[in-house]
Amino acid sequence: MGKGEFELIGWIKEQFEVPEGILGIGDDCAVMPQRDGLETLVTTDMLVDGIHFLMEDIDPYSLGWKSAAVNLSDIAGMGGKLVGTFLSIALPKNIHDGFTEEFIRGYKDISDRFNCPLLGGDTTAAKDRLCINVTVLGSCGAGQSLKRSGARPGDLVCVTGTLGDSAAGLKLVLERQSDGCGSPEAPDTERILVDRHYRPMPRIAEGLRLAATTGVNACMDISDGIGSDLRHILEASGVTARVDVRSLPLSAELRDLCARRGWDPAELALSGGEDYELLFTCRPGTPVSIPHTVIGEILAAPEGSETAGPVIIWEGTDKDFTGFRHF
Amino acid sequence: MGKGEFELIGWIKEQFEVPEGILGIGDDCAVMPQRDGLETLVTTDMLVDGIHFLMEDIDPYSLGWKSAAVNLSDIAGMGGKLVGTFLSIALPKNIHDGFTEEFIRGYKDISDRFNCPLLGGDTTAAKDRLCINVTVLGSCGAGQSLKRSGARPGDLVCVTGTLGDSAAGLKLVLERQSDGCGSPEAPDTERILVDRHYRPMPRIAEGLRLAATTGVNACMDISDGIGSDLRHILEASGVTARVDVRSLPLSAELRDLCARRGWDPAELALSGGEDYELLFTCRPGTPVSIPHTVIGEILAAPEGSETAGPVIIWEGTDKDFTGFRHF
Repeated sequence: MGKGEFELIGWIKEQFEVPEGILGIGDDCAVMPQRDGLETLVTTDMLVDGIHFLMEDIDPYSLGWKSAAVNLSDIAGMGGKLVGTFLSIALPKNIHDGFTEEFIRGYKDISDRFNCPLLGGDTTAAKDRLCINVTVLGSCGAGQSLKRSGARPGDLVCVTGTLGDSAAGLKLVLERQSDGCGSPEAPDTERILVDRHYRPMPRIAEGLRLAATTGVNACMDISDGIGSDLRHILEASGVTARVDVRSLPLSAELRDLCARRGWDPAELALSGGEDYELLFTCRPGTPVSIPHTVIGEILAAPEGSETAGPVIIWEGTDKDFTGFRHF
Repeated sequence: MGKGEFELIGWIKEQFEVPEGILGIGDDCAVMPQRDGLETLVTTDMLVDGIHFLMEDIDPYSLGWKSAAVNLSDIAGMGGKLVGTFLSIALPKNIHDGFTEEFIRGYKDISDRFNCPLLGGDTTAAKDRLCINVTVLGSCGAGQSLKRSGARPGDLVCVTGTLGDSAAGLKLVLERQSDGCGSPEAPDTERILVDRHYRPMPRIAEGLRLAATTGVNACMDISDGIGSDLRHILEASGVTARVDVRSLPLSAELRDLCARRGWDPAELALSGGEDYELLFTCRPGTPVSIPHTVIGEILAAPEGSETAGPVIIWEGTDKDFTGFRHF
């Protein structure tokens, strides 16, 4: 390829002219004006066996759930309402009996939970590995969607829920794999963390609330870990940030597991990813009506720093998380 | 899997309730009302190495072109206007230098030709095989989209362009493969047919014209060959048809090649697929202002035939094409 993921996306973006009024590549969703004061949101994500999941470990129900969830989460990151989904799935010939039914059951359960119908798609054969693509359509009032580009100096940096649970769950899954034991009797703590990894819950209601709250300036969903995702907001907004690592919201289960294993919870919370919580910035004093944690503050970019990329100041740690990237 | 492709799609469709006013699974596109007299069309298609194309044969430029073309064609099949596309691509690590650039160049050339911007997508790694998914958004006036379900007894059955060229092109490609010679000096005739297979031209303008013509009752694009595709129209409309195989439009190149090789052009035209022409029905006397060929007539379904599936009467041949299916 010769190009990294973000470099490749940037290059592709440069090749296409986008009509005025449309937000194309570069945020959680594309945004297109409908007539009559509405905007259409569109997002699409591909999940490939061996890259995004391991067929030999994940159960088909969870895979169906997760395939929908990670895409619904992009609509949550823009503060949108769900309209419907489109599912493409390439099924290898040797797939076991009942796989598709269980996959669709998981996909349907989360779709029903969020009242978001499957409206179309494509089913096909694959040569060897399962490949899934989901496209989601959403909508929101014109100009109401939450973008990555709105953060302003002085904004508080906030997150919903707890961070690092999904990363810990993945670590447990990989550990079991290398131990060679498929599905041991996991203690409750571990089961909860693995569930957080396999069955994430998109923050649709929370995103809608944030989009309706004056003073919320930027938002995105956390898919790569905030060490990487916060950087997207900073780059899009031309600002920098200070984050207090001691204030990261950590679940009791994560603390418990990390204490027993000697793992660093802050590292999992910052660089692990796949939490599918919301990361947002707002003016101090904004009446945010959903549970959230303030983890830092947006700062003006230092003079002449445009080319170096945004530097995040990590407080409360002697580690440097600046370098963490998903790829 | 335990289910055939169409059976699986039917089963999935049954699992999901679609809100009133939305056309979900079962046509070329899903159709959703926008406010203010417009409808949104959405279609999605996945292309997998080893199933839909052969990496060792197709050049990356053509693959980019075709990935967009087969999806744009679904919008043409509904008579829609193009809004934009979303491209997901999973790239294996061993992909050769310059592949992505050439792929995007082909994708961009057809996108520019139809003034249809790329608005978003997903780039990811693949374990071994390339996988591509394209989603296209289109629009049309409320109630104006051409569905499969509108055919009525007495309608003429018509097609645009010529049929079978793409199937002949594929046959040539596979022949070269088994000969072990990658890219021989093909005579002009063969080059044209292979081009028709690798760089199909969606009939966007033609679809728009048909949607604006009173008396055009049903339409779809030809992806699986009319032996299979016409059956979709008949099933959706509850009718049957008589097709005169002698009237199928065949290109000079196809006739020439088939004469030299002893191939049956009617078989390629009916069962080959991937022509991406339009198959439509209209009342006799409808002023159809695009080049087309009348190949048959819609008939009322015989009494009590609902469960047996529509029977097409093939005239001018002693073969039975009823059994042809893509899978």
